[in-house]
Amino acid sequence: MNSKKVSSIGERALITLLTEIFKSPARKEVLEGAGSDDCAVLDLGGEDCLVISTDMLHRTTDFPVGMSPWQMGWMSAAVNFSDIAAMGAKPLGILMAIGMPTETEISFVEELAKGIQACAEFCETAVIGGDIDTHEELTITGTSLGRMKKSQLLRRSGAKPGDLVCVTGYTGSAGAALEIFQSKHRGVEEESEQAGEQAGEQAGEQGTEQEAEKTREAKETLIKSLLEPVPRTKEAQKLAASGSVTSMMDTSDGLAMSLHDLAKAGCIGFKIQEDSLPILPEVRDFASTPENDPEKLLELALYTGGDFELLFTVDPEQIKKVQNICKLSIIGECAEYDEGILLERPDGSIIPVKRRGYQQLKAGSS
Amino acid sequence: MNSKKVSSIGERALITLLTEIFKSPARKEVLEGAGSDDCAVLDLGGEDCLVISTDMLHRTTDFPVGMSPWQMGWMSAAVNFSDIAAMGAKPLGILMAIGMPTETEISFVEELAKGIQACAEFCETAVIGGDIDTHEELTITGTSLGRMKKSQLLRRSGAKPGDLVCVTGYTGSAGAALEIFQSKHRGVEEESEQAGEQAGEQAGEQGTEQEAEKTREAKETLIKSLLEPVPRTKEAQKLAASGSVTSMMDTSDGLAMSLHDLAKAGCIGFKIQEDSLPILPEVRDFASTPENDPEKLLELALYTGGDFELLFTVDPEQIKKVQNICKLSIIGECAEYDEGILLERPDGSIIPVKRRGYQQLKAGSS
Repeated sequence: MNSKKVSSIGERALITLLTEIFKSPARKEVLEGAGSDDCAVLDLGGEDCLVISTDMLHRTTDFPVGMSPWQMGWMSAAVNFSDIAAMGAKPLGILMAIGMPTETEISFVEELAKGIQACAEFCETAVIGGDIDTHEELTITGTSLGRMKKSQLLRRSGAKPGDLVCVTGYTGSAGAALEIFQSKHRGVEEESEQAGEQAGEQAGEQGTEQEAEKTREAKETLIKSLLEPVPRTKEAQKLAASGSVTSMMDTSDGLAMSLHDLAKAGCIGFKIQEDSLPILPEVRDFASTPENDPEKLLELALYTGGDFELLFTVDPEQIKKVQNICKLSIIGECAEYDEGILLERPDGSIIPVKRRGYQQLKAGSS
Repeated sequence: MNSKKVSSIGERALITLLTEIFKSPARKEVLEGAGSDDCAVLDLGGEDCLVISTDMLHRTTDFPVGMSPWQMGWMSAAVNFSDIAAMGAKPLGILMAIGMPTETEISFVEELAKGIQACAEFCETAVIGGDIDTHEELTITGTSLGRMKKSQLLRRSGAKPGDLVCVTGYTGSAGAALEIFQSKHRGVEEESEQAGEQAGEQAGEQGTEQEAEKTREAKETLIKSLLEPVPRTKEAQKLAASGSVTSMMDTSDGLAMSLHDLAKAGCIGFKIQEDSLPILPEVRDFASTPENDPEKLLELALYTGGDFELLFTVDPEQIKKVQNICKLSIIGECAEYDEGILLERPDGSIIPVKRRGYQQLKAGSS
């Protein structure tokens, strides 16, 4: 065991190992400790609790080539606020520890900081502290804090068989966008040329330049969703206050991985309808090009990360109420744990959802 | 300005620049925001407040060659708890984000985690969360939390002319230890041989093997103070509760730098007595070897960091009470801001204390 390498045991096994070492005598103020949910939760005494999460990002793994410094800042804050959203809490502040190469230009740092600040403002909170360090590779560790009523806390556990499974926004968008963005910046296909050709073809077929413009815009929107993910902090607070949500987490590691995490924590199974998965038309178009595998769309929707949407379960009697709170898609329902996590395909066949996540966009442990 | 490099403007100017960008409309719950004290401080509503700090450490800059993984873990937690101590708060928990090379051995990670856990236990708290990431260079960002009564908060500001300047423990120990430790691990002088020779010489001079053993032990104690710094969380809580301390911070960036930070925050000057600086006999011995500069001892005591002691000011009428709380040294007294920061030398001459810190052991912004 001891001479084994980190790479051989995987992230989740490593978390289990560390959680064991960090185990300490139960303290009444720690409502959720290390490794158990999207955030740690501390009892503040009265009605309220504090939720806290930390996420380390660094250039080679987390920031695709071509991303702007402003976007790196925004994303570093967004992934942290997404964890706060996952519990249903109101953001209280964020701390940012930034390690950067000594040759970094000041203008880069300024843009990075403005991106962080913009995301904090979007989440109606502020950067309250941090640390600066020199580092060979740009490394940003955020720590976000939130506050909420203990009674409204949305954990990964709590769902019952029969509860409806819901998700905000779309799934697979960031995964598709990453492929488009990477090919664009790999220089294999120069985006403007490619867009131009496609525009030409489409213009030929459809006879309008407007359509070509639309395609370009759609791609840009897709890429923006990858590079500037929107933390669902506002929706999350309303969902928590509704009292109708039984469990929740974010989809940062992909929908399939999140379903597995939710299943494990809640001791629950899922039956998901493929037809109900919310997928952008642009992602469908991208996946259906001839060079792609026929299962490409499902691969993107289930097994790619970076979407930072909320995955949650709702008491079916209360679903109307919840639908009035925010835009959501009902993608299936909760089953018994023994039934596993199944996907019903459009042809009526049933396949298991694998416990697999797309790690390239991995943004932290939670 | 914009094309300037980070290296050209220095850490503190960079903090000022970022603080400006992170400025947000005053919110009543933020009692101290980014860049102003050792920790950010959030009002919890009732009598209490939350103090939070984050510090990023990484292998090449913060962990001297030869340091064990357990010690890296301990230190990563200790520097964070020292910030909590600097405010006088009771530690509430720590989050650790760890980025490590994929080829790291599991046994290394286990030892690292045990060091973190040991320090958290020493501070009577726990690791409550974290993140794991792969990283080219071992990088550890801790975020520590503490809680205390708002009325007892010990800020960097608050001292008055005439207040006594105090420090816990010793100064210059870590600086001296670093030099000893580095020369040992540089392989220029192999410690065991060196200790052996010195032991031989000393045994010859003093006629006892006991003395040689003592020298070895003293060096080991010194090195331990460098590699396993003790966060003064217990002393800090008692000092805060006493109501007799007027301002406080830690000495992580060195005594001189801390005096300057305290002076700036409190709009105060200092007159320090060189004779009163608490310096270990082993450090005096080390500094007085013939190859060293005559001012080596003062250089170590004022301008080297890594000691993580508490520097604080006390109302002179209450000093007896404070002396009963913890071991401390009175090193001088507060003066008017205009008088600057002066050092009275043993011969009665007065020199200014420079605004200079030893950055090699730098452990964060605070």
